[in-house]
Amino acid sequence: MKNTFLNRLTPKEPKFYPLLRNLASISLQAAEQLVACIEANNQEGAISIHQKIKDLEHSGDQLTNEIFEKLNTTFITPFDREDINSLANKLDDVTDEIYSCSKRILFYKPKQLPQAALDLANMIKDATKWILEAVKELDILKKSPTKIKKYCKELHEIENRADEVYQVFVTNLFAKETDAIEIIKLKEIMHVLETTTDETDHVGKIIKTIIVKYA
Amino acid sequence: MKNTFLNRLTPKEPKFYPLLRNLASISLQAAEQLVACIEANNQEGAISIHQKIKDLEHSGDQLTNEIFEKLNTTFITPFDREDINSLANKLDDVTDEIYSCSKRILFYKPKQLPQAALDLANMIKDATKWILEAVKELDILKKSPTKIKKYCKELHEIENRADEVYQVFVTNLFAKETDAIEIIKLKEIMHVLETTTDETDHVGKIIKTIIVKYA
Amino acid sequence: MKNTFLNRLTPKEPKFYPLLRNLASISLQAAEQLVACIEANNQEGAISIHQKIKDLEHSGDQLTNEIFEKLNTTFITPFDREDINSLANKLDDVTDEIYSCSKRILFYKPKQLPQAALDLANMIKDATKWILEAVKELDILKKSPTKIKKYCKELHEIENRADEVYQVFVTNLFAKETDAIEIIKLKEIMHVLETTTDETDHVGKIIKTIIVKYA
Repeated sequence: MKNTFLNRLTPKEPKFYPLLRNLASISLQAAEQLVACIEANNQEGAISIHQKIKDLEHSGDQLTNEIFEKLNTTFITPFDREDINSLANKLDDVTDEIYSCSKRILFYKPKQLPQAALDLANMIKDATKWILEAVKELDILKKSPTKIKKYCKELHEIENRADEVYQVFVTNLFAKETDAIEIIKLKEIMHVLETTTDETDHVGKIIKTIIVKYA
Repeated sequence: MKNTFLNRLTPKEPKFYPLLRNLASISLQAAEQLVACIEANNQEGAISIHQKIKDLEHSGDQLTNEIFEKLNTTFITPFDREDINSLANKLDDVTDEIYSCSKRILFYKPKQLPQAALDLANMIKDATKWILEAVKELDILKKSPTKIKKYCKELHEIENRADEVYQVFVTNLFAKETDAIEIIKLKEIMHVLETTTDETDHVGKIIKTIIVKYA
Repeated sequence: MKNTFLNRLTPKEPKFYPLLRNLASISLQAAEQLVACIEANNQEGAISIHQKIKDLEHSGDQLTNEIFEKLNTTFITPFDREDINSLANKLDDVTDEIYSCSKRILFYKPKQLPQAALDLANMIKDATKWILEAVKELDILKKSPTKIKKYCKELHEIENRADEVYQVFVTNLFAKETDAIEIIKLKEIMHVLETTTDETDHVGKIIKTIIVKYA
């Protein structure tokens, strides 16, 4: 009776699962590079790491398009196709946003990145790990909806914590920094890092929509 | 013939209406506190009001999750479940954004909040009132689509007016304020207030999607 | 076998195509005025051009509402109604965002707009042209999905290029401009121009969702 996601998807189209897992894996790799980029804390190291993130972003874009093309040439019910496409787009948005972070870190050249930037990057890395775990569970959604719901909850909590880190950072920044241009730079870098956790939470919301529909 | 929203929803699942109404009511209470927070215009008053908004945000989060869990354990058609989940998420986004406003007001400590901040907060309060009215009409959508459409129109007009208030404010800010840091603070506080009316308009758009589907 | 969009839509409701085309055409006209507004480079010229964009934004709003009302009083399947409503809203969002650009250019009064602002405005104009072409193809989606997919790809590429232009501009701005208030003004104007290409890419994504569902 319940959960027709497996029934509709697996027998007809098992090949979408590995593609979605690859997309989630690209986000995780990009997040790991983002942490390395902030830890490097020198321009040359950052440039070569940024290039790796750019390549990952490009791979994500191509893979998302491959999923789109495969969806158009394969028979599955229109309903499922739409959901897979939405999920693929949202997974790719995470990698795009990580790429935005590394661009800003590289180009704005702030005097020094705060510890809070590394904290946020590590939260992004944790979030991409939960996303990968959740995507791995999609094909057994029927057997274990509990696990996947737990992962979505983790994503929501990371987003809440990241928001707190951002608020505390900006409050201190306004209290201590007197150089307005430095404030603009750091505030935007930190804001894009925080926005990346919003994107990971959006993936959780899309997965919850899939649960509501099919579990 | 028309409007199957009532038909699909009411006989099977009347208990979702009170939950959605509670969620809309939480937004309205948060908006009322936001107005009080700006009127207080002193740090101690603002702290205790901010705590109330934080508690409301937490209640909204829990209630949204309760709706999600109830949707997963109840039999209604998948189509409806999805729409109720979307509406619940959007209603909760309004409270989240009001919470973002109060955090910025509390933490950024601008020298003085402008009259325009109070104007925007009152617009947010009005918008949450229209949302509550619209949500109350959901169970009689068939009998009176005219009313609910009118409320959605009000939400769109409030968003337009809030955008004008924001633009006029920022224009004056650039013309008069010479302290760049003060500009950054006030511009962001006002921007988040304006963005909150965007969120209330999004609720109107979700309700219009429900009308297009079921009315 | 494939593409039931035409089958579902055309015989029952051919009148939505011209309305959607008009909506796309309004965006293109607004984009042309935006280019003119930046080229004018004087306050009086900009004011009269801004008024034209405001009128176009108002027409777009009315037309979107007309589509919404027509959808509610016409029998087509609920599925299609929803998609037409989404597409109309997204098309209208592009015009709204162009209007946001012209408001900022007019009100913030930066000392001088950079060449990159004109470059972005021309990209927006190109994007609205591709959107109009794509919308024209909707009624023959079955015969030529290749063309419409190509247009969506162009939209995505314009968004990527606009992001690069924005990043290069902001990097130079931080390197050369020492007036923090001027940085705030120019950064926001350029950001909203760049965000407008995000909106045009969103239209491409909605059209791709329609392709995934019906082509």
